[in-house]
Amino acid sequence: MHNSVEPLHSDRAFAAPSRLEDLPTPCLILDETRMNRNIARLKSRIHGLGAILRPHLKTAKSVEVARRLMESPQGPAAVSTLKEAEQFANVGVKDILYAVGIAPGKLGRVAALRAQGVDLAVLLDSLDQARAVAVKSREIGAPIPALIEIDADGHRSGVKPGDPVLVEIGRALEDGGAALRGVMAHAGDSYNTRYTAEIVAAADQERAAVLRSAAGLREVGLPCPIISVGSTPTAHFGRDLSGVTEVRAGVFVFFDLMMVGLGVCQIDDIALSVLATVIGHQRDKGQILVDAGWMAMSADRGTAKQEVDQGFGLIGDIDGRPYPDLILSDANHEHGIISVRTGSDANLPELEVGSLVRILPNHACATGAQHDRYHVVTDGSRRLEAIWPRFSGW
Amino acid sequence: MHNSVEPLHSDRAFAAPSRLEDLPTPCLILDETRMNRNIARLKSRIHGLGAILRPHLKTAKSVEVARRLMESPQGPAAVSTLKEAEQFANVGVKDILYAVGIAPGKLGRVAALRAQGVDLAVLLDSLDQARAVAVKSREIGAPIPALIEIDADGHRSGVKPGDPVLVEIGRALEDGGAALRGVMAHAGDSYNTRYTAEIVAAADQERAAVLRSAAGLREVGLPCPIISVGSTPTAHFGRDLSGVTEVRAGVFVFFDLMMVGLGVCQIDDIALSVLATVIGHQRDKGQILVDAGWMAMSADRGTAKQEVDQGFGLIGDIDGRPYPDLILSDANHEHGIISVRTGSDANLPELEVGSLVRILPNHACATGAQHDRYHVVTDGSRRLEAIWPRFSGW
Repeated sequence: MHNSVEPLHSDRAFAAPSRLEDLPTPCLILDETRMNRNIARLKSRIHGLGAILRPHLKTAKSVEVARRLMESPQGPAAVSTLKEAEQFANVGVKDILYAVGIAPGKLGRVAALRAQGVDLAVLLDSLDQARAVAVKSREIGAPIPALIEIDADGHRSGVKPGDPVLVEIGRALEDGGAALRGVMAHAGDSYNTRYTAEIVAAADQERAAVLRSAAGLREVGLPCPIISVGSTPTAHFGRDLSGVTEVRAGVFVFFDLMMVGLGVCQIDDIALSVLATVIGHQRDKGQILVDAGWMAMSADRGTAKQEVDQGFGLIGDIDGRPYPDLILSDANHEHGIISVRTGSDANLPELEVGSLVRILPNHACATGAQHDRYHVVTDGSRRLEAIWPRFSGW
Repeated sequence: MHNSVEPLHSDRAFAAPSRLEDLPTPCLILDETRMNRNIARLKSRIHGLGAILRPHLKTAKSVEVARRLMESPQGPAAVSTLKEAEQFANVGVKDILYAVGIAPGKLGRVAALRAQGVDLAVLLDSLDQARAVAVKSREIGAPIPALIEIDADGHRSGVKPGDPVLVEIGRALEDGGAALRGVMAHAGDSYNTRYTAEIVAAADQERAAVLRSAAGLREVGLPCPIISVGSTPTAHFGRDLSGVTEVRAGVFVFFDLMMVGLGVCQIDDIALSVLATVIGHQRDKGQILVDAGWMAMSADRGTAKQEVDQGFGLIGDIDGRPYPDLILSDANHEHGIISVRTGSDANLPELEVGSLVRILPNHACATGAQHDRYHVVTDGSRRLEAIWPRFSGW
């Protein structure tokens, strides 16, 4: 339902906007120059270390962005929902990893995609799931490939490296009629680090966890063709990918203030912003009101736990150049409150009612998800180059 | 674009689900019995105090829900975006207040709706905005009606009661070719209270602010037909509406854990929940993983500042009955982590992979906004009665 975009204001007597100044606000702006630079940077890094990129398409949920992210039009790609798998399969992506633990009730949709010629692999970390995948494989008469999730850092899910259940899961898949495709780890705790050295250590730990797990599987004669690691921080700071076949990362395509806080990127690498209009002032409180609240920004307060709390976002001018210490200090449904960061002596800029600002997000995945299209510009230009739809849902 | 719902899995060979157990997860469940009870409760209260309800349709963004909320099929209604105004106008709603400070650039869409016969009023709190509305009124040769926002509690926006600019704004509207429709206050700080007595006081203050402002306008001969107050907490606890013409409220239609925390409702009044599937366990950590993360729940952590922190939501069984002290303690993109609340000695329930749970949200507006449809059931039943689309965007 969300995979096409109607012409803007198609039902109204307005010309389609061709410049940022004419867009209805709030809306999502994508700087393609920065995005392309972010993609080139990570691809070059990973290729230099001898692996390939399996971009996580959950961040963008856009066919246009996916085509710029992937190594080839057929993939590989990682997704977080079957809706993404179906949408990207529809445009020819063939090598997809559904990188969230599989629920048995979802295997029907997995099988349907595989029957269409899509090499969709699932992820699991329990014998129950392995048995369900095996049952479905026998039912459809074709092996469904599964990766075993490895818990590298106690972050969330996965089997601990060295846990004997790993081999049991592998056997349940292979002996049951499914296929063991490999192992995968996600160093999710790298998002909670404060120093680069910790990210480097997290990358080492992530790689060590999958290598140890793969060795344990291969030792008993089980196959393990794919060895997959990844998170945006570890992908940018890991020093060694020997033995690893692929790296997954998602948010790097746009970057955001959380990644700035981790030192993974600079503010002028952030490719995503929300265009908003000033709708009022509370001058005695040093506040400017805009028409972008949490509905436009998301309620994500990820930088609250970092050294620099960016509120609900960092305020830039219409060209995306940040004002000193100016943040979206609070957000209601469709109201955002702009003020100077606590402790700063920066001045509140003069922004009269109707002025436009661009708000850089804490978390690009969450902010993007609040919108159904990208308004694409190139760096430093206000000309609207394209509108790319993005989809949502499951 | 979002105003129709495709048949579920229309492109796949599945029968449309008719029971909760067969729905793809995560998805949004609406208990119509509870919703109807919530609506009846507030309408009866407000009518008893001599005013009418102008429901805020931003919470539901659904034509089906709006029809059950409004006093008549034509309204009145409040909206938070022009997209809502346009969508509801398309189905015959005629009396609409766009209850967010107007940006001059949006007056073209306002005028287009008014030209279609919709009595759309705007909101403002500055002379700049009043002049812009007057200019547009003269341009189209018909007065655009505006309410002046009154700041009852320093929460966000509005003119302070007694500020002389109030009369200046009124005159700029009336003398400039626009129309002064009235005054409006929103006791937003009532969301931050801890005791019912504070909500009662907030309601008194909200009413006093608009009555004083209306008197000031009328004293100099300006019209003030509408005197509008409202927030879900003050609407439920205010004792006196004399002089007030209408009450606005939004989230009461579904209620949520924040409203439970404020004592405005009970847990079994909450009509909205997210159906999720168990996808894993980390038994050594006392954790159950489900396929509903912040993408399905929103990143809203509104209860974090209340006495009972509900994490990202309270976990119930498939029929919505809460487990003791079981919350969504953390949420990633598409992963939710269930655990027993810190300090509780409740047991983690046995929920094997594939089990279904229903998660009650912190903030119904935010959780609803992550979804494009409501799966409607009646209280205590698992039978799917209807699917109601909801829209999003601006």
